[in-house]
Amino acid sequence: MAMPPTVSWRGDARTGALVIIEQTLLPSELRLLELTDLDGVIDAIVRLAVRGAPAIGVAGAYGCVIALRSGLGAAGLERLADARPTAVNLRWAVERVKSVAEGDVKKALAEAKRIHASDEDTCRRIGQHGAALIRNGMGLLTHCNAGALATAGMGTALAPMYVAHANGVKFRVFADETRPLLQGARLTSFELSEQGIDVTVIGDGMAASVMRAGRVQLVITGADRIAANGDAANKIGTYGVAVAARHHDIPFYVAAPRSTFDAALASGNEIPIEERSESELRRLGPTQLVPAGAKVFNPAFDVTPAGLITGLITEDGIFSPGQIRSWLAGG
Amino acid sequence: MAMPPTVSWRGDARTGALVIIEQTLLPSELRLLELTDLDGVIDAIVRLAVRGAPAIGVAGAYGCVIALRSGLGAAGLERLADARPTAVNLRWAVERVKSVAEGDVKKALAEAKRIHASDEDTCRRIGQHGAALIRNGMGLLTHCNAGALATAGMGTALAPMYVAHANGVKFRVFADETRPLLQGARLTSFELSEQGIDVTVIGDGMAASVMRAGRVQLVITGADRIAANGDAANKIGTYGVAVAARHHDIPFYVAAPRSTFDAALASGNEIPIEERSESELRRLGPTQLVPAGAKVFNPAFDVTPAGLITGLITEDGIFSPGQIRSWLAGG
Repeated sequence: MAMPPTVSWRGDARTGALVIIEQTLLPSELRLLELTDLDGVIDAIVRLAVRGAPAIGVAGAYGCVIALRSGLGAAGLERLADARPTAVNLRWAVERVKSVAEGDVKKALAEAKRIHASDEDTCRRIGQHGAALIRNGMGLLTHCNAGALATAGMGTALAPMYVAHANGVKFRVFADETRPLLQGARLTSFELSEQGIDVTVIGDGMAASVMRAGRVQLVITGADRIAANGDAANKIGTYGVAVAARHHDIPFYVAAPRSTFDAALASGNEIPIEERSESELRRLGPTQLVPAGAKVFNPAFDVTPAGLITGLITEDGIFSPGQIRSWLAGG
Repeated sequence: MAMPPTVSWRGDARTGALVIIEQTLLPSELRLLELTDLDGVIDAIVRLAVRGAPAIGVAGAYGCVIALRSGLGAAGLERLADARPTAVNLRWAVERVKSVAEGDVKKALAEAKRIHASDEDTCRRIGQHGAALIRNGMGLLTHCNAGALATAGMGTALAPMYVAHANGVKFRVFADETRPLLQGARLTSFELSEQGIDVTVIGDGMAASVMRAGRVQLVITGADRIAANGDAANKIGTYGVAVAARHHDIPFYVAAPRSTFDAALASGNEIPIEERSESELRRLGPTQLVPAGAKVFNPAFDVTPAGLITGLITEDGIFSPGQIRSWLAGG
C-alpha cells in the first residue's frame, strides 16, 4: 500500500502515540492524527476518524495503553469500551488488554501489538479464503467500507478482492456510496482504485437495478457484530442489498473475523443499534437540506438475518450461518 | 398551499413569461424564475429547476408559446421536446400544443392552459382514488418527489396523502432522501411538512430495514414513463424499493396520469434511460468525494417491472398492471 497504516503505535508505552488516518478528510486529504490522551482517542472513534469494527478494536487496544498510563483506571477503560455500542470488537479488545496488562502499561502495549498483528494475519486469511469465490469477469458489489481503512490489515470484505487481484483475476467492483457518511464513495473507491482495482461508485438506490442488469455475480460486505445464529449487523443499507441479492439469486457473503462474532447473542434482535445524529442527514456541508418541520431517522446499522446470508468468510474458512454456532464453540 | 404554483404563466402570449419555482434552491430558498426565452426554458428543464414528469409537461407546453413567438418553429419545438428523454409527458405536451396551435401563439397559450388545468384536475382525481388505500395509523413510504412540486396540481404519488390528510386520516410518511439530487430530503419533506403531514426523511438504504421493522404498510411512488404492460420507469432507486416491498409483502403502488403512459411501448425494456452527469455523485457541493481513479455510474431512472406493482393509481381509477392495455385502448 502507498497508504500509511490505518492504525499504528509510534514510540514506547510511556510517551508514544496512537497514530490514525483522519478518515473524515478522505479522499481530499490524507492526514495522520497523533493521539496521546484518552479523550482524543474516544473522540476519534465517535467522530468516525477511525472506523470499521476491526480498526476500532485495534485503536481501542492502543487506547488502553493511554488510559492506563494516564491513571484513568477501570473507569477510563469503560468509557473507551462504550465509545460506540454496535461493534463488539471494541469492548472485546479493551477487555483483553485490561485482563492481560493488569495495570502495567508495557504489558498493555505488548498485548495491543499482538491484537494488531493478529488482525493483520486474520485479514490475510479472510482474503485467501474469500478469493476462491472471485472468478474472471465477475461483477462484485460491496456496501460501506470494510477494507484496509476499516482494519489494521488488508480489510475483511475487500480482502478477498485484494488477494484475487494479486492473483491476476480480472473483476469489477460496484461500491455503494453509503449514505449518510459516504464511506463507499470516499473510502472504498479510494483504497480499491489506489490498488488498481476497477471500481465504480453508485448511489445506494442503484444497487438493485445494477443487479437486475446482470452486472453483479457476488456481494461481499463486512459486519460490525454477528450473533451466534449468523444474523449480521452492518452499516445501514446492507439489509436492503441482501434483500435485492436474494431477489436476483446473487450470492451474498459477509466477511468478518472471529472477534466480530458475539457468541452471547442468540440472534440479531439482541444487537444494540446505534442511532446517530440527525445532522448527518439533515445537513449537507453547511447547507440545511431537510426542513425543520420534517423529522429524520438515522440508525447507523441494520441487521441482515442469517436466512439471506449465503456464507460467512472468516479466518478459519467460509461457513454457512448454520455452522457458526459450532465454530464458535470449537474456537 | 402557502407555496406559489410550481409552474404558471404570467401575462399574455406575446409578452408573458413562464414562471417556475427554482427547485434546485429548495428548501433553503423559495425563489421564482421568470423565463421568456427558449434557451432559458430548456436550461431550467435540464438543470431540474422544474422537474417531475407532469410539471415538465406543463412547462414544455408553455415553452411552446415562447418558441413559437420567437420564430424558432419546428426545430425549436423539437429541441424543447428533447430536453429530457425519459418523461413522455414533455414530448406529448409539445406535440399537442404544436398540432393545436398551427403556429398561432394565442392558440398555443390557450392549449397550454388547457393542459395545465387538465393536470390540476388529473392530480385531484388521482388523489381521490388513491386516498381509499390510506387508513388510520398506517406508515407510508415514497421515493423521490411526485408531489405538488412535480406537477401543476397536488401531485401524483403525494396526492392521495393530501386527500387522506384533508379527510382527517392520520398516517405517517417515510420519505427516501433520494440520491443523488435529494428530492425526497429537499422537496417531499418540504411540501408534506408545509401541509402538516407527519414526514420522516430516511437514507435510501434504510427503506428495507424500516419495512422489516413493520413501520410501512403502503408504498406509493410516481413514474416518468409507463409501458403498455405496466412496467414503470421512475427515479433511480424505485426498483430497489419495489423489491424490498415485495420481500416484506407490502403493497407497492405507482401513481401517474394517462399522459405518463406510453401505449407505443410494449415493455419497460424500450424506455430510454437518461444517464446524468457523474458530478452529481462525484462532488458534494464544492468537495470532490469520489477520487479520480474510481468510476461513477449515474442513471437517473430505473424500471420497475409490472410483476412488482400491486396497482397503478390513475385519474380513471386504480388498475392492476394487466388492465392497463385495455384502459389505454379504451381511453
